[in-house]
Amino acid sequence: MGAPGDIEDLIGLMARLPGLGPRSARRAVLMLLKKRGPLMAPLAQAMAHVALSARDCSVCGNIGTEDTCPICTDPRRQTGEICVVEDVADLWAMERAGAFRGRYHVLGGTLSALDGLGPDELRIPLLVRRVQEEQTREVILALNATVDGQTTAHYIADALAATGVQVSSLAQGVPIGGELDYLDDGTIGAALRARRRV
Amino acid sequence: MGAPGDIEDLIGLMARLPGLGPRSARRAVLMLLKKRGPLMAPLAQAMAHVALSARDCSVCGNIGTEDTCPICTDPRRQTGEICVVEDVADLWAMERAGAFRGRYHVLGGTLSALDGLGPDELRIPLLVRRVQEEQTREVILALNATVDGQTTAHYIADALAATGVQVSSLAQGVPIGGELDYLDDGTIGAALRARRRV
Ligand SMILES: [Zn+2]
Ligand SMILES: [Zn+2]
Repeated sequence: MGAPGDIEDLIGLMARLPGLGPRSARRAVLMLLKKRGPLMAPLAQAMAHVALSARDCSVCGNIGTEDTCPICTDPRRQTGEICVVEDVADLWAMERAGAFRGRYHVLGGTLSALDGLGPDELRIPLLVRRVQEEQTREVILALNATVDGQTTAHYIADALAATGVQVSSLAQGVPIGGELDYLDDGTIGAALRARRRV
Repeated sequence: MGAPGDIEDLIGLMARLPGLGPRSARRAVLMLLKKRGPLMAPLAQAMAHVALSARDCSVCGNIGTEDTCPICTDPRRQTGEICVVEDVADLWAMERAGAFRGRYHVLGGTLSALDGLGPDELRIPLLVRRVQEEQTREVILALNATVDGQTTAHYIADALAATGVQVSSLAQGVPIGGELDYLDDGTIGAALRARRRV
């Protein structure tokens, strides 16, 4: 309270964003109000445009502006490899790394009895069908190194067993530039178990 | 990089908000993408609406949707008292506290040679004219307890001297619920100097 109603409504909506509480939403809106022309209007327009045009790719679950996303339609991307990620953010991170030239499958979460997320919600049957139809050679599981992520990875590996496709997962270890001091025990343990001769 | 161009543009604009860096802007946009209908579309609409309709009150500098803000046009607000604040955020904070029933004057900053903010930019001549025209009894300086805030307060007190209006400022001291341990030395010193007999 304190600001006019329309502005309070805007602050309330902004406060629902992750990383912004009520206080910082208020500060953000104030800054927008000071930069109505150069920032607030373009931001509103960009957001409205994306809200209207964004859609989930019907093949892989990536977000784009067409029924099929740019990665699925890019003839230069290898069809024989599918990288399975939990989330579109993970797909973006993989793309930023620029190390993978195949296609993706976005689960949209991990198996979770609590959240009512089963294999169908995560589009796992669709993944099995893709592997068969696209004659996939390898499925790379790039799931988070959490309990839920690893449970989901095992479930997918089992579901794909009958197809004969090779299933692999990202190596676990010390991140580049990572200081042992700041890593959790699980990471250090995994890095030790996966140690390589140098 | 990683997301489609339109979405990257949106992330770039969001990252310019205070409290959101590039990483959290990305997370915020991802959350908006997941809630396109219930959150992203209404947020875009609310923002576009405010960007179009918001304007600075020609009397006091508060932000509203008309030429003159609701506080300046509210006949129940006392005209004899003007509370001077640096920023619209401070006006909102005062209104949330609900302790002041007069009118405001929003400076839009503090005197700063560095930022090229002089008396004219801060609407100080306009304040002097208001005090004369509105027959103001008291001007309450609710400026931040910073060096710039206090320099500005002194300048305004000098500028108003000839009008004969009473000029006061908010009391400094320990905030309610404030633990001495967590207060800076300046606050403790000011509270000690302003001590009252109990
Ligand atoms: Zn796709
Ligand atoms: Zn006003």
